[in-house]
Amino acid sequence: MHRRLREEKVFKDPVHNYIHVQDEVIWSLINTPEFQRLRRIRQLGTSYLTFHGAEHSRFSHSLGVYEITRRIISQFERSGYADWPQGDKLVALCAALLHDLGHGPFSHSIEEAFQMHHEDWTCKILLGDTEVGAVMREVSADFPEKVAAVIRKDYENPIVVNLVSSPLDADRMDYLLRDAYFTGVNYGTIDMDRILRMLRPYQGRVVVKESGMHAVEDYLMSRYQMYWQIYFHPVTRSSEIILRQILRRAKELYRNGHSFNFLPHPLPDLFQGNIGVADYLQLDEALMQTAFMQWTRESDELLSDLCSRFLNRKLYKYVELDTPELEMLEEIREAFTRVGLHPEYDMEIDFPTDLPYDVFRPDEGIRQKQILLLDRQDRVREISEVSDIVRSISGLHRGKTHLYYPDNKLSAVMDRLPRKVARIFEQQN
Amino acid sequence: MHRRLREEKVFKDPVHNYIHVQDEVIWSLINTPEFQRLRRIRQLGTSYLTFHGAEHSRFSHSLGVYEITRRIISQFERSGYADWPQGDKLVALCAALLHDLGHGPFSHSIEEAFQMHHEDWTCKILLGDTEVGAVMREVSADFPEKVAAVIRKDYENPIVVNLVSSPLDADRMDYLLRDAYFTGVNYGTIDMDRILRMLRPYQGRVVVKESGMHAVEDYLMSRYQMYWQIYFHPVTRSSEIILRQILRRAKELYRNGHSFNFLPHPLPDLFQGNIGVADYLQLDEALMQTAFMQWTRESDELLSDLCSRFLNRKLYKYVELDTPELEMLEEIREAFTRVGLHPEYDMEIDFPTDLPYDVFRPDEGIRQKQILLLDRQDRVREISEVSDIVRSISGLHRGKTHLYYPDNKLSAVMDRLPRKVARIFEQQN
Amino acid sequence: MHRRLREEKVFKDPVHNYIHVQDEVIWSLINTPEFQRLRRIRQLGTSYLTFHGAEHSRFSHSLGVYEITRRIISQFERSGYADWPQGDKLVALCAALLHDLGHGPFSHSIEEAFQMHHEDWTCKILLGDTEVGAVMREVSADFPEKVAAVIRKDYENPIVVNLVSSPLDADRMDYLLRDAYFTGVNYGTIDMDRILRMLRPYQGRVVVKESGMHAVEDYLMSRYQMYWQIYFHPVTRSSEIILRQILRRAKELYRNGHSFNFLPHPLPDLFQGNIGVADYLQLDEALMQTAFMQWTRESDELLSDLCSRFLNRKLYKYVELDTPELEMLEEIREAFTRVGLHPEYDMEIDFPTDLPYDVFRPDEGIRQKQILLLDRQDRVREISEVSDIVRSISGLHRGKTHLYYPDNKLSAVMDRLPRKVARIFEQQN
Amino acid sequence: MHRRLREEKVFKDPVHNYIHVQDEVIWSLINTPEFQRLRRIRQLGTSYLTFHGAEHSRFSHSLGVYEITRRIISQFERSGYADWPQGDKLVALCAALLHDLGHGPFSHSIEEAFQMHHEDWTCKILLGDTEVGAVMREVSADFPEKVAAVIRKDYENPIVVNLVSSPLDADRMDYLLRDAYFTGVNYGTIDMDRILRMLRPYQGRVVVKESGMHAVEDYLMSRYQMYWQIYFHPVTRSSEIILRQILRRAKELYRNGHSFNFLPHPLPDLFQGNIGVADYLQLDEALMQTAFMQWTRESDELLSDLCSRFLNRKLYKYVELDTPELEMLEEIREAFTRVGLHPEYDMEIDFPTDLPYDVFRPDEGIRQKQILLLDRQDRVREISEVSDIVRSISGLHRGKTHLYYPDNKLSAVMDRLPRKVARIFEQQN
Repeated sequence: MHRRLREEKVFKDPVHNYIHVQDEVIWSLINTPEFQRLRRIRQLGTSYLTFHGAEHSRFSHSLGVYEITRRIISQFERSGYADWPQGDKLVALCAALLHDLGHGPFSHSIEEAFQMHHEDWTCKILLGDTEVGAVMREVSADFPEKVAAVIRKDYENPIVVNLVSSPLDADRMDYLLRDAYFTGVNYGTIDMDRILRMLRPYQGRVVVKESGMHAVEDYLMSRYQMYWQIYFHPVTRSSEIILRQILRRAKELYRNGHSFNFLPHPLPDLFQGNIGVADYLQLDEALMQTAFMQWTRESDELLSDLCSRFLNRKLYKYVELDTPELEMLEEIREAFTRVGLHPEYDMEIDFPTDLPYDVFRPDEGIRQKQILLLDRQDRVREISEVSDIVRSISGLHRGKTHLYYPDNKLSAVMDRLPRKVARIFEQQN
Repeated sequence: MHRRLREEKVFKDPVHNYIHVQDEVIWSLINTPEFQRLRRIRQLGTSYLTFHGAEHSRFSHSLGVYEITRRIISQFERSGYADWPQGDKLVALCAALLHDLGHGPFSHSIEEAFQMHHEDWTCKILLGDTEVGAVMREVSADFPEKVAAVIRKDYENPIVVNLVSSPLDADRMDYLLRDAYFTGVNYGTIDMDRILRMLRPYQGRVVVKESGMHAVEDYLMSRYQMYWQIYFHPVTRSSEIILRQILRRAKELYRNGHSFNFLPHPLPDLFQGNIGVADYLQLDEALMQTAFMQWTRESDELLSDLCSRFLNRKLYKYVELDTPELEMLEEIREAFTRVGLHPEYDMEIDFPTDLPYDVFRPDEGIRQKQILLLDRQDRVREISEVSDIVRSISGLHRGKTHLYYPDNKLSAVMDRLPRKVARIFEQQN
Repeated sequence: MHRRLREEKVFKDPVHNYIHVQDEVIWSLINTPEFQRLRRIRQLGTSYLTFHGAEHSRFSHSLGVYEITRRIISQFERSGYADWPQGDKLVALCAALLHDLGHGPFSHSIEEAFQMHHEDWTCKILLGDTEVGAVMREVSADFPEKVAAVIRKDYENPIVVNLVSSPLDADRMDYLLRDAYFTGVNYGTIDMDRILRMLRPYQGRVVVKESGMHAVEDYLMSRYQMYWQIYFHPVTRSSEIILRQILRRAKELYRNGHSFNFLPHPLPDLFQGNIGVADYLQLDEALMQTAFMQWTRESDELLSDLCSRFLNRKLYKYVELDTPELEMLEEIREAFTRVGLHPEYDMEIDFPTDLPYDVFRPDEGIRQKQILLLDRQDRVREISEVSDIVRSISGLHRGKTHLYYPDNKLSAVMDRLPRKVARIFEQQN
Repeated sequence: MHRRLREEKVFKDPVHNYIHVQDEVIWSLINTPEFQRLRRIRQLGTSYLTFHGAEHSRFSHSLGVYEITRRIISQFERSGYADWPQGDKLVALCAALLHDLGHGPFSHSIEEAFQMHHEDWTCKILLGDTEVGAVMREVSADFPEKVAAVIRKDYENPIVVNLVSSPLDADRMDYLLRDAYFTGVNYGTIDMDRILRMLRPYQGRVVVKESGMHAVEDYLMSRYQMYWQIYFHPVTRSSEIILRQILRRAKELYRNGHSFNFLPHPLPDLFQGNIGVADYLQLDEALMQTAFMQWTRESDELLSDLCSRFLNRKLYKYVELDTPELEMLEEIREAFTRVGLHPEYDMEIDFPTDLPYDVFRPDEGIRQKQILLLDRQDRVREISEVSDIVRSISGLHRGKTHLYYPDNKLSAVMDRLPRKVARIFEQQN
């Protein structure tokens, strides 16, 4: 099974121009139902409601991560670097291709609502009775476990883990470029070719030649801008909040015995919290959107209103809260309750760094999360020791707390709110 | 209602950089549920199964068509051309924005399966009891009818119809650019700025200054390439065929009284052929995909197999038929039937010019379908009279007939087929 | 000398992103004075007077041709194709890099004025007592002769000649892309990656896999557009004409014993027609422009006027001549002479296909000038046998005859010209 | 004279797509010899020796600055902002177009060598007996003086000065975009459209709406990267040093009565330091390069060697000096002298912040050098008060001191240098 294809196959890709597939096993993995399912899950969740171009799927992104990884390893092998373990190429390529396999529909929201982690699901799919598992078992019986180990970050060869998951990995490079391309913003343009040329395997790590420092600085600045302008955009946050409220409300109703007009397989299993691999793989964003559409006719007004809001993009408005206002939070909640607003559904506090996105901060942790530079004397230093600009931005923290709320409901009761509370909402955008 | 926005609003767009909204009515139309629904319908139907980047929606495209139209009219107004009817700006902008409003999920396939036309649906939505209708009626009572007249091509002012629908209209310019961008091919790059600068309103037509001829030639050549490489790509055709077979089979089963495990509102109405506007607007690609997913567990094997094929991208293979082989068609069909293959579902003949896409051919028809050049002496000539290259390509016709079939089923019976028939499939790609 | 560099060196290039240099000999050749001189010769001659971005040099282009050739050969070697002679890689790379070495300043004009051919000069430089020659002789004594043979198209291994010079060679691909980039037009965008992937060495030829046909069609159409919109642009033609008139006039004056106020080395040798290699290499566009600037103060009015025109971009106007007007040519010339205009300098007939650029025409000649497609059955066919679009455009011929003239001089005598002649110039743009 | 053109004229531009000319006076100014001369002066001086694509001229850049200014003013006028003085449009456009008119060949080096300032020359050309002056005087007698006042920054209407010269002016925006385009690096991509949309005339200043802050941050970071990677690139610095040594040496020789084999008009005037406007306009880079070429055959070895180095790109090598090494400077110079190296020509200390490029530093000065943000309450704040990222980078200072030297000469005497000195050069790249 582990054979080269007789003739390389390519996918046309707007970001990398062509994705090159050279191994039979990669080709077979792409053609499994589990991998094809990623076409039905968007890369950027609800961001398409803010940036209409952002309709691209995790399928595209996964191919991109595979392609970047392939290019890095090709360069390592062509140059014959001693620190790269040649036998691990296929493990690394498969881990790159499949690293997002466990993502569910509207991934971050569903994970939060149902306490799941997509990495766990990825491993279950790799190791389970799936086509992906079958394809990999043809390489060798322990091959799925090897790939899963890379995903779990405990593979025996740490450089493979580092290649697939680090602050400068193929995953991050692909999503910066891809999300910039599809949203149309130009903050995400990075000189990937230069970065790739500067990467070196070195003592169990992928490090960067010091002469590539400027390109890495530029990459980190792009990343910073993309977080604040795309990933943390308040309109996207607002749609995420509505999404999570829908899931929360539906779960509540289900657990309270509500009889839904529409609840196809495998949603009951999901709501009960005991969904298996085969059923999990039936979940996709088409199903969720269809449920939302059908639920616009549900008897529970809260649920049907939230679903209409999501589908018709009638999102919540928001105000920014400063420190004194933040201290009034309980007061606001009580005032809301007194005038008949729902203290949990009609106001939501959001502070973006709570998000599962990791802006690079060198101070925050272990060596695996650092970018290391390799100088001519083969010394290795953490980049912020060398780069003024990285040192300058690495502590930065621009998070602002926002309060989201349904504008129409609030307007109706505004004059009954205490003046002090009402004033907060008058600054509204 | 027909007021300028206090401050222009913009959408970030990867193709046109920014979409500029200046009128309140345009802003309100974009925010109706009917227009937001276009987010859930892909611009290129099943092409994403061939070009994975092609996941963009009709929402994006509609904004793009609006923006190009806005730029054309701005230029006309800035230059004060006498032949442009200034009062019709808003009618034209609304028609441009809303021209695709009636598209259903996987538009061409559903139209064929259920004998519908999206232009009819567009008019019904414009004129019906919809939010879009309500917004337009605030402009004036007859405003929806005016916009519908432009869609129907019988508006009193023919230049407005010509602007919105002609071989060089905003619709075609946007889709060439947008489809090229999202697929990643570069055949669709056209010098739109130059073409726009060269357009002139002239006696009820939008014509092109002769000095813009080369840009128009280039546009027509891009169009030609896009048709053959994107829109008529055999892999896309194969997925369209499976889609149409799914719809055909489901309709058959429904009419034969089959009891579906999944048939939510408004699919029964659709199958009965009496769906109303409000219900039609509930149809989207999420619903169709969800139905396909649920139907993979249907008792009818043909339907469940087709649905699995579509979702897992196990498409039909194809062979090209030359003229002698085409004459053997009945023989093939009989041979198929004899060995137990289904004469309608296990083979499908496809000849791409049957498609509802209109490659420009000057000989084919009326003046409205022609591109006219305006020279310095204010003479107007059809472009192929002036351009050698347009004359050369205008008769071209590269259609090839393909026979599509399920590879696994055919392989199983190959040795029982007459040699003459079997040989056709051995050339397979 | 023929060693790999310890570490690859790169040049940042706007068209190919990076130019990769891997061999010591290539690096040394780039650093010779003869190759550096190409920085002082523009790729597109006087086109910068029409497209102000077109200020790029033959140095950039030569690096680009080298890089494309390197990529083609890398692919051939990686795939291990039997028909590619591995030992010839370095010969091919050097020929690609150095093929334009003999170009003089404003190449086509100087060649015409002084009956020289740049290929001859290239060979003289390769074989002469130059640094380029010395670097190559370190590879082997006969290496310069091998490279020269490729330039002269009589190298023993015809595939090397074909790779470096054919209708689909690296030279043409680079200049289409580069000229499009620097002028800013988008007619020259071609899918080079796809074309490169489709090239195959086959029986002494570089052929194209049939599945790459569309990309080649697109390339030929781009080429067609670039010729008519960039290379044959009438404003560029006008500046070429003035340039040639300057050279013609200066040569005349020199041969008539005129004493120039400025005639530095090696212009006297050039004018006498016996310039040697070392002196030829002193010629560059800086010298020519400086001469023109100094000659604006020459006593010969014709020369000083022409030089001012060139430097200050006061070009000749032009009219298009139709067939009856063409037949009046002698009549025009006589009328011009009668009113005191100069029959050779004040009118100049130009018919662009006379130019040394070769638009591809399959009917015109030998097999070397054809593009061959290789199908799955390993049959080889000329592309216009297979492609409708290539067949359609291959006979096309859009040349128009223009008459160029100094507008101010003509205006002054217009009323004294015969009515029939005057009328020709009244249509003027 | 101050009339609109009957029909707008355009220049194709790779950066802004089209440059639109709408006024007769702008068209006439572009066609003057003084403006056409800018075609013969490169925008980035010697940077083309580092980035071979950087061969673009100040002509292109000047058109670009004009175009950006035109777009800003168009937006101001379309929006009818009260704080923009409508009558000053033409003054602003002319100042934008002509602001670089006084640049000499290899501008910064020639300014340093001959103690001149290009702004002074610009004003002399505007006000002198030139075609540019004549064209402007047709607008009104005091028009040239108005334009010159904008250049001198003392125009009566400060917002016009601010528009043409500020940290966020059209000049800087054009050169970032243009230099990025022609070098091929992608550090200079900025979202100009967004910045332009966010600019507001406000109390004699052009300020930025606060919602445009991120775009400005991105612009400042691009600028920062461009300085360190393009403008201060050590290879470019090395070629600048050689250029300045050539000019210094030639001036010395001239003043010592050396008899040059080549010294055409107007070089003697330049060397004597009393060159007039008409003669200054004869200076261009063609002349300088021609002089360098001729001087390779000069009897003064130092001059001829420097000229060969420049033309053949045999540049000086460099080492970075740390603080203790900097303190050894006199010691190094003495050691050099002792072994026969030239203490002024064979070593050159370079510290890039000495350059005439102004990286934005908010602490450094007056209000005119600041970027101001305008919030919804019409409060104006300096950007680093609001933006963490700008505050972080604004004090940054990455300058490193380099010592440049001729590698071949140094190698020949290396073993005679004191060990302590020699060691500095062994770290060499």
